[in-house]
Amino acid sequence: MKTFEFWFDFGSTASYLAWTQLPALEAATGAKAVLKPMLLGGVFQATGNQSPANIPAKGKYIFVDFARFANRYGVPLIRNPHFPINTLLFMRGAIALQMKGDARFMDYCRAIFDAIWVDSLNMNDPATAADALSRAGFDAQALVALASEQTTKDALKAATQTAVERGVFGAPTFFVGDQMFWGQDRLDFVKEALR
Amino acid sequence: MKTFEFWFDFGSTASYLAWTQLPALEAATGAKAVLKPMLLGGVFQATGNQSPANIPAKGKYIFVDFARFANRYGVPLIRNPHFPINTLLFMRGAIALQMKGDARFMDYCRAIFDAIWVDSLNMNDPATAADALSRAGFDAQALVALASEQTTKDALKAATQTAVERGVFGAPTFFVGDQMFWGQDRLDFVKEALR
Repeated sequence: MKTFEFWFDFGSTASYLAWTQLPALEAATGAKAVLKPMLLGGVFQATGNQSPANIPAKGKYIFVDFARFANRYGVPLIRNPHFPINTLLFMRGAIALQMKGDARFMDYCRAIFDAIWVDSLNMNDPATAADALSRAGFDAQALVALASEQTTKDALKAATQTAVERGVFGAPTFFVGDQMFWGQDRLDFVKEALR
Repeated sequence: MKTFEFWFDFGSTASYLAWTQLPALEAATGAKAVLKPMLLGGVFQATGNQSPANIPAKGKYIFVDFARFANRYGVPLIRNPHFPINTLLFMRGAIALQMKGDARFMDYCRAIFDAIWVDSLNMNDPATAADALSRAGFDAQALVALASEQTTKDALKAATQTAVERGVFGAPTFFVGDQMFWGQDRLDFVKEALR
């Protein structure tokens, strides 16, 4: 079966927008998305790239741009007043669930993405995060324990390094074979590459 | 008549790509492009933004991305080995011709864009630039003189400052009224805004 890789970080607005379009992309292409958690902060550090939010004029514009795409996609998107969210623990949780082959990996991703970009929760606050995860049916304490294991930490570090070695400098990034596509606004090119 | 603003710098690959699509955009919308020369280097300096080429991984990718769009648009695009090109004199020439109401303003723009992005000329070299302009039917010496007038220098500085004040941080940037659109990959949104 054809696949494509989707490298993401929950804290990236563009990753959220692209995530909402994965089902449609899979349906249109018959290809399966392989989710690749990485730590965008680590990618920025390794590449010298930075968040558009760091440039005031760009930061001001970029959410207008994201809102236009949300409108086009017909998906909710609220500017989270607690941005940026430190996603280290959440990305570790994602890669840990994925390594375990946990069937609820996608539900976990949805819970985190929605908590940040739809419900505007302050996911920097451990109690708020635990509450959001509990309401989504997850054992928050168990997740934190899992995320804190050395194997998990090493796995996220290795994944992020792999991303950088393959040329990733931002999120989301798609791969169709060796072809790289950066941004939630390149879905049509990903689609073409999969045909 | 409806209009939209197109803020550009000849040295920006994305500006070139968008420039090639202006006639189609005008035809599709019935709106007229108002060309707005600015100095992208000045915009970067004022906003703290920088060329994607400054981030090695991004610089490596971005031309692949531009080539994909060139292919989609069906227009030639060659990676100029002399990039970056110092466009100060060319942008001054553009704004000077425009201020004079010179009927050959668009021909001048085409000559410079093509010299850089189609013919891969080293436009950093004054003799090469003069030759390219001469072949396009321009009096290179007269243009340099015009570009070097204080009024011209001031006009480009003022235009660049206006761009920054309106929120511009990169090129190309479109305005439809007060709505700003950054990038050659936002043509469809510009089109929608004009309808």
